[in-house]
Amino acid sequence: MFDCGKIAIIGGGSWATAIAKIVIGHTHHIGWYMRRDDSIEEFKRIGHNPNYLTSVHFNTNEIFFSSDINRIVEAYDTLVFVVPSPYLKNHLKKLKTRLRDKFIVTAIKGLVSDDNIACSEYFHEVYDVPEENLACIGGPSHAEEVALERLSYLTIGCSDQEKAQAFADVLDSEFIKTKTSSDVIGIEYSSVLKNVYAIASGICSGLKYGDNFQAVLISNAVQEMSRFLTAINPIERSVYDSVYLGDLLVTGYSKFSRNRTFGTMIGKGYSVKSAQIEMEMIAEGFFGTKCMKEKNRHMHVNMPILDAVYNILYERISPQIEIKLLTDSFR
Amino acid sequence: MFDCGKIAIIGGGSWATAIAKIVIGHTHHIGWYMRRDDSIEEFKRIGHNPNYLTSVHFNTNEIFFSSDINRIVEAYDTLVFVVPSPYLKNHLKKLKTRLRDKFIVTAIKGLVSDDNIACSEYFHEVYDVPEENLACIGGPSHAEEVALERLSYLTIGCSDQEKAQAFADVLDSEFIKTKTSSDVIGIEYSSVLKNVYAIASGICSGLKYGDNFQAVLISNAVQEMSRFLTAINPIERSVYDSVYLGDLLVTGYSKFSRNRTFGTMIGKGYSVKSAQIEMEMIAEGFFGTKCMKEKNRHMHVNMPILDAVYNILYERISPQIEIKLLTDSFR
Repeated sequence: MFDCGKIAIIGGGSWATAIAKIVIGHTHHIGWYMRRDDSIEEFKRIGHNPNYLTSVHFNTNEIFFSSDINRIVEAYDTLVFVVPSPYLKNHLKKLKTRLRDKFIVTAIKGLVSDDNIACSEYFHEVYDVPEENLACIGGPSHAEEVALERLSYLTIGCSDQEKAQAFADVLDSEFIKTKTSSDVIGIEYSSVLKNVYAIASGICSGLKYGDNFQAVLISNAVQEMSRFLTAINPIERSVYDSVYLGDLLVTGYSKFSRNRTFGTMIGKGYSVKSAQIEMEMIAEGFFGTKCMKEKNRHMHVNMPILDAVYNILYERISPQIEIKLLTDSFR
Repeated sequence: MFDCGKIAIIGGGSWATAIAKIVIGHTHHIGWYMRRDDSIEEFKRIGHNPNYLTSVHFNTNEIFFSSDINRIVEAYDTLVFVVPSPYLKNHLKKLKTRLRDKFIVTAIKGLVSDDNIACSEYFHEVYDVPEENLACIGGPSHAEEVALERLSYLTIGCSDQEKAQAFADVLDSEFIKTKTSSDVIGIEYSSVLKNVYAIASGICSGLKYGDNFQAVLISNAVQEMSRFLTAINPIERSVYDSVYLGDLLVTGYSKFSRNRTFGTMIGKGYSVKSAQIEMEMIAEGFFGTKCMKEKNRHMHVNMPILDAVYNILYERISPQIEIKLLTDSFR
């Protein structure tokens, strides 16, 4: 049986914190790389992440923190990457130690910037990590609900099903149910696309389209996602599975989704810049939209919703016009 | 080209009123059967339905009202049935005139009680209406949003595509987009099932399951719906189409859905009786659940969500227990 060994979390955001909570409940020890020393000190002092999921208390004796990614990578066997996709390369640039003997799990909902490939593809191509050592975590999961221990379902993707199962066993608990899949890059791309569709959903809501139309939008988004996944990784999959459809639903329908909120502001007439300032953050789907658009320039999949969101966010075409055009393409 | 001729609405509820609004915008005349003379008198006096969608004003000179179903059936060519499914038989019992030369459109989201068959099947078997004269209206459509002229998509099912298109043309407008389908009974059964799943969604919400779980529930509901539709009418269909998935989404995710509200009360611990008294109405999915369960006794499709809702509503098994069991069956 494959053993995940010692597990470390790379990243300090809310999803990283939720995964840390899940893993530590099982292993009672994790390594945790965070970028800022002051955040680590504050975490140790108050017993919880000072910035995210502040209600989740940790026994900090069970955590080895470091702001030096090399110390973490050297000392741990399984590395769970949960950094925002635009910063992944910056973190990896600091690496002096090789990754190819590690078991790498990505829980990043974005493509690698400029390269426009999924994170697992990047680890494979640039860091020589063999495919059977690359896994991903997908599924409908607001970090906030994991914090509250509300029942959630996660899917672990890995080409090696024994390894997928071994990592799934680490996550499985009373409030986390897991299953495994071999569709690593399908899961990764779908988790990028769902953010694009959540922005679209927000834009339509901001433009005062109603629930009837939202249902049509999401139905069409599932079809668009299915077309893209078939093109990028033509295996047999059921897009109804919770890791694809469910993840889209939880993001597209949730008032808590930052991507949806960002879209709503755009639909209401905010500029991209002012929406980002108002939100004090940049929704990950903003980058995802550009990466997916670039990716699809070479693939030519019919993706009218992606195109519309791209045109609105990057070409400054009016949301009214783009969404009106979209309504004509829907069935 | 097929001509729908003179069109009448059978039924006086909110969906009937919404359809009347759509049709009259195109034809400028409809017949309208309502059960109660006092409602008709009040409607004529105030210019809108006194009980439903009261913001929708009609030019009552364009409407021939009658509480005598025979007068309406005799004088009109296309009859749109929009009565609650439990009362359909009672209305039809009064008929002295034959239906088989009429174009019958059902917009009823329930099965025929006792017989447990779709309304179009009932019109065909009991009233000898030939299949090519039987149509249905499906799609994600809160009547309230149609009243507000918010963009909605409807699908017209009919085995005769020319007739489907002719009726679709009657509905098409600036705020209604239409398409056609030949899957009449698939659409009818899916519109019954979605109410069952909306009750399930409400029950889980009442039990404090979160958005992550709702997304898994709905993903599994789509799969369950797909299995049933394949069994009842094994044609090639894409369940992602808005008439199936979209209709499920709008009902399952809407705070305005009466079926979902009913489920939420059950999840919170109300008895069926007290939830019905509190709501001053009976959610159509309550009957739909029983009809579908009876139907499936002979079909043996794997339908764990339907079974759970049935056990909760009709066998008085605790929602906690049933939903807990359901969570184990999910993927």
